[in-house]
Amino acid sequence: MNVTLRGRTGHFRTVTYDAKNNSVQLIEQRLLPHEFKIVGTKNFRQTARAITDMVVRGAGAIGATAAYGLAQGARAFRGGDLSKFSTHVDLVYRILAEARPTAVDPVNAMNDVRRKMTAGATVAEQQALALAAAEEFANEDVKHCRMIGSHGAKLIRNGMRILTHCNAGWLAFVDIGTATAPLYAAQKQGKIFHVFCDETRPRSQGATLTAWELAQQKISHQIIADNAAGHFMQRDEIDLVIVGSDRVLGRTGEVANKIGTYTKAVLAARHKIPFYVAIPCSTIDWKLKRGFDIPIEDRHESEVLGAWGINPRGQRKYIRVANPASGARNPGFDVTPAELITGIITPAGIFKPKELWPHRGQLG
Amino acid sequence: MNVTLRGRTGHFRTVTYDAKNNSVQLIEQRLLPHEFKIVGTKNFRQTARAITDMVVRGAGAIGATAAYGLAQGARAFRGGDLSKFSTHVDLVYRILAEARPTAVDPVNAMNDVRRKMTAGATVAEQQALALAAAEEFANEDVKHCRMIGSHGAKLIRNGMRILTHCNAGWLAFVDIGTATAPLYAAQKQGKIFHVFCDETRPRSQGATLTAWELAQQKISHQIIADNAAGHFMQRDEIDLVIVGSDRVLGRTGEVANKIGTYTKAVLAARHKIPFYVAIPCSTIDWKLKRGFDIPIEDRHESEVLGAWGINPRGQRKYIRVANPASGARNPGFDVTPAELITGIITPAGIFKPKELWPHRGQLG
Repeated sequence: MNVTLRGRTGHFRTVTYDAKNNSVQLIEQRLLPHEFKIVGTKNFRQTARAITDMVVRGAGAIGATAAYGLAQGARAFRGGDLSKFSTHVDLVYRILAEARPTAVDPVNAMNDVRRKMTAGATVAEQQALALAAAEEFANEDVKHCRMIGSHGAKLIRNGMRILTHCNAGWLAFVDIGTATAPLYAAQKQGKIFHVFCDETRPRSQGATLTAWELAQQKISHQIIADNAAGHFMQRDEIDLVIVGSDRVLGRTGEVANKIGTYTKAVLAARHKIPFYVAIPCSTIDWKLKRGFDIPIEDRHESEVLGAWGINPRGQRKYIRVANPASGARNPGFDVTPAELITGIITPAGIFKPKELWPHRGQLG
Repeated sequence: MNVTLRGRTGHFRTVTYDAKNNSVQLIEQRLLPHEFKIVGTKNFRQTARAITDMVVRGAGAIGATAAYGLAQGARAFRGGDLSKFSTHVDLVYRILAEARPTAVDPVNAMNDVRRKMTAGATVAEQQALALAAAEEFANEDVKHCRMIGSHGAKLIRNGMRILTHCNAGWLAFVDIGTATAPLYAAQKQGKIFHVFCDETRPRSQGATLTAWELAQQKISHQIIADNAAGHFMQRDEIDLVIVGSDRVLGRTGEVANKIGTYTKAVLAARHKIPFYVAIPCSTIDWKLKRGFDIPIEDRHESEVLGAWGINPRGQRKYIRVANPASGARNPGFDVTPAELITGIITPAGIFKPKELWPHRGQLG
């Protein structure tokens, strides 16, 4: 999307690739909204670490990062022995797949790259095909987000107040985003609406990333504490909820997303407010049979016990908020059952959660 | 409760009164858990400001503070003209009542003090009676919290995992607390249990005050993001919820409490987890007919847009977390309907929300 820095506007993607230096280029999201900086990884291990450490985060963005990371790892291989090369690529794949265990996009993206690269007869050919496949994945991600926007914008009417949780914006994908795609498309259509951004503790992606995106695109919005949405729903101040997802089970329609999503879905169902989940097809897991089996990442307690922000001098700092003698639990995700979800907005259209499986030919 | 500082243990109340200097003495709660300090107010206006600025917070604590503040204001009056004295006391009452508009305890406490002081025939007598009445209010608050603990402890079984929101601990009352009273009583009975403290954004009273209290009393606990309780309920990791309240409607059983309480009640109902509200009788509003009419305080957006904590050098600092170009909405409270509440734990026993009105003689 367009970013305006010191009065000048440029177009940026969240993840790109510098083929000459074999480097994955990432917007350093931990510095946003206070600083806009692009960093490059030197090798696939650094790329995996960038995913783990959340330099880059969000389903599509880490999918593209893993795809590029696999190509990066493959291209770093020296020699012509296909068997050794294959063993090396297995290692690269495994390291990148383990970087964020709840997400399914990196694995889907890398499976796609691997399938396409194995058409090559030599190491050099496979390396070239890996790069082409990663580029294609990133471009497809952008195209799919645009299609999600086109379908989702139909749900938005003038005057609506829309709640979103965490960040499934363009920063979470290569461009445009999923939960934000309908907003950007509706804005282009001249629709006027207001967005409430859940701050999304403990990492505050709503308050930092989504709010930054919406401010950049001049969309009316306000940040609210995660505690406040229920109150606004009670007072008829929320008309629609759109969130993203890190993994949707194709068989059951269950949705894994940032911790707190389930809570918002329960509230929305109680207040009969439509609750939509926007995803590219790569977020669908067609294998897993029950949401309970989705691995839920337990993150470090320091995220809950404090906060990152900037001090009055503009320096990025961590402060300890909680009682120093107390510990925390910090699950990163939760799973929302299909019954609470009005629809899944995909590049192929909007489906009820239980309709994904019968339409798997269209979505796979 | 007992507080251990630098290895030495002493007993403290949240609110006390220094009659010689006509000063209300308060634990400066904004410094907790990082610093334990007692501050004194010089006059009733400072006392009102201490309530507004949340030096002292919590239903019973601000009730006792307002009661002492009314006595403080009354005792500052010079002269013997009863009519002028009465006008002065009206002013003191109004300033203190406006300090936190959602709470009902300050008004109930001050009504109690005023009724008792008007038995005096002279200004001096009324001043002395005001002080005695405020002391009595504070002592009654402690007694009532002890009775709440005694009733509430029956709900706690060995091995339970209990969720609480915000701080309705001894820091929110003169001593012992309401939502924490059953915990302290159960601990005395030798029961073993674990508490999850919602961090309670935006002011983080759970992460700071409740966690500090529980750590001081050596009760097993962990802090969780407000987003996480739904996930733990899904995974059968929460057995009981106990919260406090700032105002319970005697006619309807509706409960106003810290923003986010309604959300937890909705989740608990879905998962059939008992949801209890612990209050002294002074928290019951017998007049108001519907929860919708409870005034909901809109607090400053800076609370949502950042966080207070300590930096690595132990200095108390505010950092801006959110996007600098974005604003926030910050309602301080929400209202939970009676249907979501299993029971109200009062000094007179545990009642279903709808049973308050028929038992008003016992509770008034």
